[in-house]
Amino acid sequence: MSTVYVTRRAHFNAAHRLHNPAKSHAWNQAAFGKCNNPNWHGHNYLLEVTVAGTPEPSTGFVLDLGELKQLIQEHVVDHLDHKNLNVDVTFMAGVIPSTENLVIAIWHILAPHIPAGRLHRIRLFETERNYAEYFGPTHDQ
Amino acid sequence: MSTVYVTRRAHFNAAHRLHNPAKSHAWNQAAFGKCNNPNWHGHNYLLEVTVAGTPEPSTGFVLDLGELKQLIQEHVVDHLDHKNLNVDVTFMAGVIPSTENLVIAIWHILAPHIPAGRLHRIRLFETERNYAEYFGPTHDQ
Amino acid sequence: MSTVYVTRRAHFNAAHRLHNPAKSHAWNQAAFGKCNNPNWHGHNYLLEVTVAGTPEPSTGFVLDLGELKQLIQEHVVDHLDHKNLNVDVTFMAGVIPSTENLVIAIWHILAPHIPAGRLHRIRLFETERNYAEYFGPTHDQ
Amino acid sequence: MSTVYVTRRAHFNAAHRLHNPAKSHAWNQAAFGKCNNPNWHGHNYLLEVTVAGTPEPSTGFVLDLGELKQLIQEHVVDHLDHKNLNVDVTFMAGVIPSTENLVIAIWHILAPHIPAGRLHRIRLFETERNYAEYFGPTHDQ
Amino acid sequence: MSTVYVTRRAHFNAAHRLHNPAKSHAWNQAAFGKCNNPNWHGHNYLLEVTVAGTPEPSTGFVLDLGELKQLIQEHVVDHLDHKNLNVDVTFMAGVIPSTENLVIAIWHILAPHIPAGRLHRIRLFETERNYAEYFGPTHDQ
Amino acid sequence: MSTVYVTRRAHFNAAHRLHNPAKSHAWNQAAFGKCNNPNWHGHNYLLEVTVAGTPEPSTGFVLDLGELKQLIQEHVVDHLDHKNLNVDVTFMAGVIPSTENLVIAIWHILAPHIPAGRLHRIRLFETERNYAEYFGPTHDQ
Repeated sequence: MSTVYVTRRAHFNAAHRLHNPAKSHAWNQAAFGKCNNPNWHGHNYLLEVTVAGTPEPSTGFVLDLGELKQLIQEHVVDHLDHKNLNVDVTFMAGVIPSTENLVIAIWHILAPHIPAGRLHRIRLFETERNYAEYFGPTHDQ
Repeated sequence: MSTVYVTRRAHFNAAHRLHNPAKSHAWNQAAFGKCNNPNWHGHNYLLEVTVAGTPEPSTGFVLDLGELKQLIQEHVVDHLDHKNLNVDVTFMAGVIPSTENLVIAIWHILAPHIPAGRLHRIRLFETERNYAEYFGPTHDQ
Repeated sequence: MSTVYVTRRAHFNAAHRLHNPAKSHAWNQAAFGKCNNPNWHGHNYLLEVTVAGTPEPSTGFVLDLGELKQLIQEHVVDHLDHKNLNVDVTFMAGVIPSTENLVIAIWHILAPHIPAGRLHRIRLFETERNYAEYFGPTHDQ
Repeated sequence: MSTVYVTRRAHFNAAHRLHNPAKSHAWNQAAFGKCNNPNWHGHNYLLEVTVAGTPEPSTGFVLDLGELKQLIQEHVVDHLDHKNLNVDVTFMAGVIPSTENLVIAIWHILAPHIPAGRLHRIRLFETERNYAEYFGPTHDQ
Repeated sequence: MSTVYVTRRAHFNAAHRLHNPAKSHAWNQAAFGKCNNPNWHGHNYLLEVTVAGTPEPSTGFVLDLGELKQLIQEHVVDHLDHKNLNVDVTFMAGVIPSTENLVIAIWHILAPHIPAGRLHRIRLFETERNYAEYFGPTHDQ
Repeated sequence: MSTVYVTRRAHFNAAHRLHNPAKSHAWNQAAFGKCNNPNWHGHNYLLEVTVAGTPEPSTGFVLDLGELKQLIQEHVVDHLDHKNLNVDVTFMAGVIPSTENLVIAIWHILAPHIPAGRLHRIRLFETERNYAEYFGPTHDQ
């Protein structure tokens, strides 16, 4: 039994604003600086989705990466690409769109569509210099 | 006399919307598709500024790239980074923020600060897959 | 009048063999070395298509990059991606599939679909370390 | 005792075809799509080999990366570069050349040449958008 | 409780020489080859610092990446950038400046400035083809 | 007649110091800042050599890129890689090793080995953010 991890990358371009509406303007300025611009800013996000498993002997595949690409497109990219992460995205409603919160949200959106226990990691680059990774809720236990 | 071209890269992250307010909603949808999202989207822009000249013998420099970095920061990046290109940028007022219009505007912002005839090219990547280049108004004559 | 150059990138993965059937085995070995492997080898090609023009005032576009993407997909990528460049590609029939010959062929395939005089450059990376560029037949006159 | 992980990258360019000869043409088309092209296609593969260990005090090295480069060249790259992965590679005989099967095979080829227990990971990019990783058979126990 | 890993990248350019002064010239030549050049050589280093934690609900941040950027600048980059790693760096005194020894040293410099148990990994690219990673002293127990 | 431009990339790692020995310490500090460190610093340089020509019909090659790779290795990389650009390099003797001066020097070293009039451009990245380009002495006439 050989566990292999396969990763598919995808891109999306989105606007966002880091802002906590329960806090004052001064608090938001101190916490988020220029990321708090009320007129928004944006990023070219690079997403990596990693799935673990044993290659299926008849195909040599852990899973069909074409199917994974479609899952990512339908459940994630179509909801985030050319969108405003604070306004347009149902699964980010009420959540500050930090890269940390995005990787957790994307995990929970994708996990039901992948065989149990096989989703391994969500990695998201906000810029070339910053990224966040999440390995799921059971990683902490 | 040896002409050398030196290039400095910079980054900025911004929100924008491709929209022509003189046209109908249907026209804008047809022309700009998802880039017309009224809630904005955004990009990590990669800017390249190229200056031509003969290396100065005492330094070996066409120009001081530290000074060029400062010029780009002060006159371009500080005006565009973490901004909304449709709303926040004086030198883009009334201009559709396409990559084409951005390279022309950035040329005209930077040219007065660089010795005459030496600014060679503005190149701007909107994404890894799309970029625009402008060589200035005299390039066309 | 401001000429701007816009570039769209695309990718394709293909097999090929550098081989001149009019020459001997020894000549081919000497000319092409391991690239002459009769069982083929392959590459992830990165293609750049550059078009020149003046931004159209109502859109800010030199041309609609979505349409350019479609032209590249239909006329180039669909014919080359996951193909054997020596065997499967009508427009490469009888031509040694060097990167040089590919950029010339891709120019002639795309040029009829782009307004006259506006196609500026075809650039093709065979690997991260090698690329070829072609500026069209009038560039030589 | 400080465990450090050191990684060396290498490249190879190869042709392959995803095909299960025990299955029908229709099954192969459904499973592999355009990757089943009987005339092959190919990729620029990027390989990463990671070895764990404590830096040797006299050199500061976990292992000599020049020696690791030579091992990878001799045992992996020389067998795969400018080859057909279905036809030319002894250690892939009878195996569908998916990225998953390649990382497992490369692990087993390299492991005997590296001190016991020190080979940590084989990572292989098939394209910029897809990669597979293998941490060895004991990782699963 | 959701553990997320956030990473910040930084760059520095430095000279170094791999040399063990307790050994003979011949030993150093055999161990380090051209990296033993007594006149030094150098690299553009790419550093990644990864910190683990649960996003703070009011900000969505594991930690303020602007603060992490400042910590890296003050405690690491200001000491290494445009320096000679053998001569100019207090925290590398008496240590052979291999990439392995650098990641261990950078860990111990940064760890006191990050909440206990939260620094997860130091990764350092010496070139595009070589990198080292360190997960701290408790990783080995 | 179809002019195609082919480019080969190479890498070298070197130490240098920007310093004009005919000037005072204060002048050098003002002109070069941290690049004037007397203990040197260094870079991973990325070199691109571009040659123009018409593909030779029997090969499809403007020139044999394997031969170009060898020329670059023998005449440039072997003289610069793991060297000190101020001390170790005959063809940089007495020249401040700015990126501008390096591209001019590399042009004059390579040009005699390439058919007359065919060397088109030397491009050298000092870092990911800075590069210089030289098109030869006849470019200026």
